[in-house]
This record gives sequence, C-alpha cells and structure tokens, in this order.
Amino acid sequence: MRTIKLTVAYDGTDFVGWQRQDEGVSIQGLIEEALSAIDGAPVTLHGAGRTDAGVHAIGQVASASVGAAIEDERLVRALNAHLPETIRVTAVTTVPDTFHARFSAVSKTYEYRIWNAPTQPPFIRRYSWHRIGPLDLALMQQASDAIAGTHDFAAFRSARSTNHTTVREIASAIWRRGDEAMLVFEITGRGFLRYMVRSLVGTLVEIGRHRRPPEDIRRLLEAPDRSAAGRTAPPRGLFLMKVDY
Amino acid sequence: MRTIKLTVAYDGTDFVGWQRQDEGVSIQGLIEEALSAIDGAPVTLHGAGRTDAGVHAIGQVASASVGAAIEDERLVRALNAHLPETIRVTAVTTVPDTFHARFSAVSKTYEYRIWNAPTQPPFIRRYSWHRIGPLDLALMQQASDAIAGTHDFAAFRSARSTNHTTVREIASAIWRRGDEAMLVFEITGRGFLRYMVRSLVGTLVEIGRHRRPPEDIRRLLEAPDRSAAGRTAPPRGLFLMKVDY
Repeated sequence: MRTIKLTVAYDGTDFVGWQRQDEGVSIQGLIEEALSAIDGAPVTLHGAGRTDAGVHAIGQVASASVGAAIEDERLVRALNAHLPETIRVTAVTTVPDTFHARFSAVSKTYEYRIWNAPTQPPFIRRYSWHRIGPLDLALMQQASDAIAGTHDFAAFRSARSTNHTTVREIASAIWRRGDEAMLVFEITGRGFLRYMVRSLVGTLVEIGRHRRPPEDIRRLLEAPDRSAAGRTAPPRGLFLMKVDY
Repeated sequence: MRTIKLTVAYDGTDFVGWQRQDEGVSIQGLIEEALSAIDGAPVTLHGAGRTDAGVHAIGQVASASVGAAIEDERLVRALNAHLPETIRVTAVTTVPDTFHARFSAVSKTYEYRIWNAPTQPPFIRRYSWHRIGPLDLALMQQASDAIAGTHDFAAFRSARSTNHTTVREIASAIWRRGDEAMLVFEITGRGFLRYMVRSLVGTLVEIGRHRRPPEDIRRLLEAPDRSAAGRTAPPRGLFLMKVDY
C-alpha cells in the first residue's frame, strides 16, 4: 500500500458537490469509483476542501491509500479515462503515509469571479456571477482589508452550519481586475466555514453598490450577526484554486 | 416596420444548430420566438451563417423586419430577458431595409480551437477539440497556405451537401498559438460549404501529426476527392467570430 496525492480540476455545475452523498453524483464518489476500479479494491478519498454543489476547482487536492503498482503518470491517464470530461486529475504523486489532504493542509486559496458588464458571454456563464450595475472596486477592497487576521466569521456562514468554532485565520483577501469585465476576489486562509467566501462576496457586492457602508465587514466580524450579512453569492463564481502543504 | 441587425453570441452545445428544424431546439427558433413575443406578431429571422449543431458563435449576425417601436438598446435587454443564458444578443441596430444578414455579407471569419496538451481543463471542454499528441504547427501553416484564393472545395464538405457549386473564395487561413496549449485556426472568406472548416481542420491535424504530407491540401483542391480528405473535426471547437458587410 502507498499513499497518493491527487490534484483535481472540475466543473462543479452538474454535481451535488465534492462530498459523496446519499443522492446525486459527487466528485469524490466518481473518483473513488474510478480508483477502486483501477485498484481492484474499495478506495476512500480524502479531499482538502468540501466544495458545495456548483462550486468549481482548479487545484483541489485529495489523498488516498492505494495498492496498485501502477505508476503515478499512468494512474493520471487511467483515472481520466474513467472520469467524465468535467473532472480531470491533473497530477498524481506518491507521498509519505503521514500525508492527509485535509489535515496536512496549511492553507487554501479560493477565487470568486464576477462578470461586471451588461451582457455576460455565454461561454463564462457557468463560471462567473453576472452583476450588471457598477461596482466600486476600491470600496470593496477597503472593506476587505478587515478580513485578514483571526476573526469570528459566524456572521458569514451557512445557517445550517454546525461547526464548534467559527473562528478562522485568513492570510489575505484581495480584489483585482481580470480579463475584460471580470472582477476577481482572491482569499487565502487556513480554513473556511461553509458558505463563508460566498457570504463575504455577497456582502462585499452590496458595499460595492453603495447599498451598505464598507465598515459593515469589520462590524460583522466584531459582533457576528448572520441576519445582518448580505445574501450568499451563487456557487457558479467560486473556484478552489490551490491547497498549500 | 423597420429592419434590424442583431449580433448574437451563443454556446451551441445544447442546440440542433442555428437553423429552425422540425425537431429540437434551434438558436434561430428561440430568437424568433423572443422577437415575436416582444413584437406581438410572427417575426422571421435571417442568419448570416447556418452553424451546425454544437458549433458556437461570438459574432453571428441576423436580420429581421420588426414593427415594435421599442428602441434598439432596450430591445437587446428585452431579448436577453426572454432567451436562455446560452444565447446572448450583444447588439441591435436599425439598418436600411435593403440589409439582409446573409446576402449582404461580404465575408465571414471562423475560428477553430484545438487544446494540444495531455489534459484538457474541464472549463474549456465544450469550446475546444482535445488533441493529445504533438502537432507540427509550422507544417500545418505551410499546408494552409494553399487555401487562400478561389478553389473547388468539393473534397472538404458534408457528404450530404447539395450545393450547386462547390467553388469558394477564401481570403486567409492562418494558424496561431492562443493562451497556454490552445492552437487557433482562423479562416476568412466570402462563403463556406457545410463542414468545410471542420473538414479542412481534420485534414490539417493529420498533416500536423505527420500522418499525411502537407501537399495533400493543394492536391485535394486541385483534384477534389471527398474520400481522400481527413476526418471532420468535431463541432465543439468551431466559432463563427464575425461577419463583415
């Protein structure tokens, strides 16, 4: 037996999310099926980030213990031959048995992409949130400056969330302009609550539209109140970009 | 009544093609339905290029005669409100009544996109043909140099094609490298036969793989033989980029 680290990209549009569930098709489930078919025995996969339904990944990382003697390079090709084109394993490497994709992770980086123009090209509709009205990017960055550091993010999470602690440590939260009308929010941290990035983005967009003051982010981090945060941005704009170890 | 010119972008993946057909959902059909609903009377749309099932457009042009007094800018918004996100009207302008999207066209430009690397990112799988092995781009360009000019393209068309003449005038046929592993074939001409661009690309890719000599393009233009051309490249990589008038 050896431990492998998989890097995975996927279009999350048609899946129930990363995690295996009783109903619906999950990314974890499909990769486990492919690995089990190749390995000839049931394989359990551990993902670094449990992305929700509709959320994408460019650099999701997963780990598993496998027995097959098949070399890493060939395993990439064998897995991709089993998987739909919406899921691509981009790398497989053999790692020490102490490696665990989730518990060994030092930080994760997410991007949230917003297309800010009257018309959204059909080719990016699955991969960005379409906001028509002008967004004040400088104000959104000013508000985002409060995010880096260790805070209680209880205001920015799923109402159904059951985490014991809602304190998370964020390294950076930066807005930048992408190609053409794309606005990109990049956030890096040790860990994230469910819906945390999308809830932050939803609130930041309201700030960018001058519907609420930029101080609201700091205020909600100091005195968490879920009902006072903005709407949760849709999953289509969110990408898990990379996981650092 | 006035004549309008529409510029349209679409993701062709889920449609039977531009043209209205007895079965299935067409882009022409959906835009006609939207225009008719807004106009309150049946509207017939004329497209510059009848793209096949799965073929995309960034700058398809269509014309129609409409009665509604609604101004051009608002018509764009009204149409997009009726249409699925996979079809976007990017511009509407009022033009002289002599304008006809197809018959007034002076030239059309198509692009064919090939992703040439071991793994194709899931986000571009609908919009490019995935070719893994190395492609000799210089050789493909050398072969493509024979395409510009007026030739009989009978070897490069649908077997079911019923055109009276298979002679077409091509202004340019150029390969270039796009972002990362993307190879792009850009071809401009007055008109094209059905499957012509995809059949040329299929043959050029065989040349790029050194499976046939670069002279084959010139040979097939001088002595047309449909059975001697390469396979027809899949529709997913083809885009109607613009129509000039």
